[in-house]
Amino acid sequence: MPSRFTYTRRVAFAETDMAGIVHFANFYRYMEEAEHAFFRSVGRSVSEHQPDGTIVGWPRVSASCSFKSPAFYDDVLDIQLIIERIGVKSLTVRYDFMRDETLLARGVMKVVCCVFQPGGPMESIEIPTEFAAVLEEDGETVD
Amino acid sequence: MPSRFTYTRRVAFAETDMAGIVHFANFYRYMEEAEHAFFRSVGRSVSEHQPDGTIVGWPRVSASCSFKSPAFYDDVLDIQLIIERIGVKSLTVRYDFMRDETLLARGVMKVVCCVFQPGGPMESIEIPTEFAAVLEEDGETVD
Amino acid sequence: MPSRFTYTRRVAFAETDMAGIVHFANFYRYMEEAEHAFFRSVGRSVSEHQPDGTIVGWPRVSASCSFKSPAFYDDVLDIQLIIERIGVKSLTVRYDFMRDETLLARGVMKVVCCVFQPGGPMESIEIPTEFAAVLEEDGETVD
Amino acid sequence: MPSRFTYTRRVAFAETDMAGIVHFANFYRYMEEAEHAFFRSVGRSVSEHQPDGTIVGWPRVSASCSFKSPAFYDDVLDIQLIIERIGVKSLTVRYDFMRDETLLARGVMKVVCCVFQPGGPMESIEIPTEFAAVLEEDGETVD
Repeated sequence: MPSRFTYTRRVAFAETDMAGIVHFANFYRYMEEAEHAFFRSVGRSVSEHQPDGTIVGWPRVSASCSFKSPAFYDDVLDIQLIIERIGVKSLTVRYDFMRDETLLARGVMKVVCCVFQPGGPMESIEIPTEFAAVLEEDGETVD
Repeated sequence: MPSRFTYTRRVAFAETDMAGIVHFANFYRYMEEAEHAFFRSVGRSVSEHQPDGTIVGWPRVSASCSFKSPAFYDDVLDIQLIIERIGVKSLTVRYDFMRDETLLARGVMKVVCCVFQPGGPMESIEIPTEFAAVLEEDGETVD
Repeated sequence: MPSRFTYTRRVAFAETDMAGIVHFANFYRYMEEAEHAFFRSVGRSVSEHQPDGTIVGWPRVSASCSFKSPAFYDDVLDIQLIIERIGVKSLTVRYDFMRDETLLARGVMKVVCCVFQPGGPMESIEIPTEFAAVLEEDGETVD
Repeated sequence: MPSRFTYTRRVAFAETDMAGIVHFANFYRYMEEAEHAFFRSVGRSVSEHQPDGTIVGWPRVSASCSFKSPAFYDDVLDIQLIIERIGVKSLTVRYDFMRDETLLARGVMKVVCCVFQPGGPMESIEIPTEFAAVLEEDGETVD
């Protein structure tokens, strides 16, 4: 613990801006895509329908990113996901954006496990035990 | 009939691409924004909750756009909405993208009036009479 | 001739809207991604730097799409690209959006071959002969 | 010092996601729009062409946002921009997202003043004196 997972993503033309580089707001979308790919890789979804009609989801509490070097059209990015902290109700994950050996950006996103009816208010809940176990077991152990 | 409505919109930096111009897919978002501004201007919404819990909405049937001249960051676009056809269940609207006197692009979008439960399947319905009347009455008459 | 190419793309969460489906404007981005993947598959790029400092690119002349059935989060879409017409200077391509055997949407995009200096005006040119040849040779022949 | 500026922005339909709320990545685009509106309000641009052919721009160093309450379609957001720090080369700005009296989210973005040739590498420079002066003078002084 924590586990490590890499999501590989090619930069699309529409994700660039007139400065000729990937627009910074797209890094937050890439983080989310990496997160969802990770959830899929352990057999879970970020939006799970429960037998009682409720949904268990993971709204964002905060997300930050620092930008070291630009990404360009057609770049193939390796987004390395490192789980930094599994809390009782929340998950803090770091995302390292790599192009080959170069670290382009580093993001951190904190999400909280919630249950809600479609369209209704959200209530934070403890991360289901079997899910927390999967998070801890998965991937290459670091440290 | 048809009525005319203008929606004015400044181009955001994030809407440009590495060619230095507005990415073409954003024109379809601009059309939708113009459509929704028009709906608001006649006191309606594109998503109206009914007393019986259903929603009346307007999913897209088709949308096309031809591009004559690029739009740039910080351009102030006047999007002229012209209702081309009010059908029994559908609405066909043209969108002329103007920068001052220059026509940059011309789009057409056809939408259909539908009723649905949140999350459920959609069923097309006739455009409510009082809404069709508003559409015909509104704005400057052309031809 | 024409050739056929399939680009497979998973729908991201950020591409959905509050109606619970893929926002229609994203289909135009998907078309462009499919186009670029096709160019890559034949060893070309949509933005090629020439020895004289100019760039050969393919700005959009028009793009249309008709929507038959919605796409949802996590859907794996097969976007089938069919070259409908190779003109002297332009290329017209159809895009069929499939989820398994279901046709969700069908788009058509016309692009024109242009040369330009970075930041300068564009001039349409004839499609380079060797490129037109590749377009005609590539992929499974239909009809 | 610091000065305060408010940018008002209505949420577009395309900015929502299947959870029925504004997708979190759009808050970073809103921050940038507010920043650019502020630059315009003091007679400057985020992309200024110099007599020598270079451009002075403001690439992002980092951006973070914490999310307290969701924003919805058609919400009118007041984005309050507060300059937190004017450094020698960088600018740190806070963005409070308000819907009426409710704080929905709070972001911080750090940008650095750079000079570059179109398409070339960027070099950080000191914020031009007359610009720093404008930043300090503008708007209502808060403590």
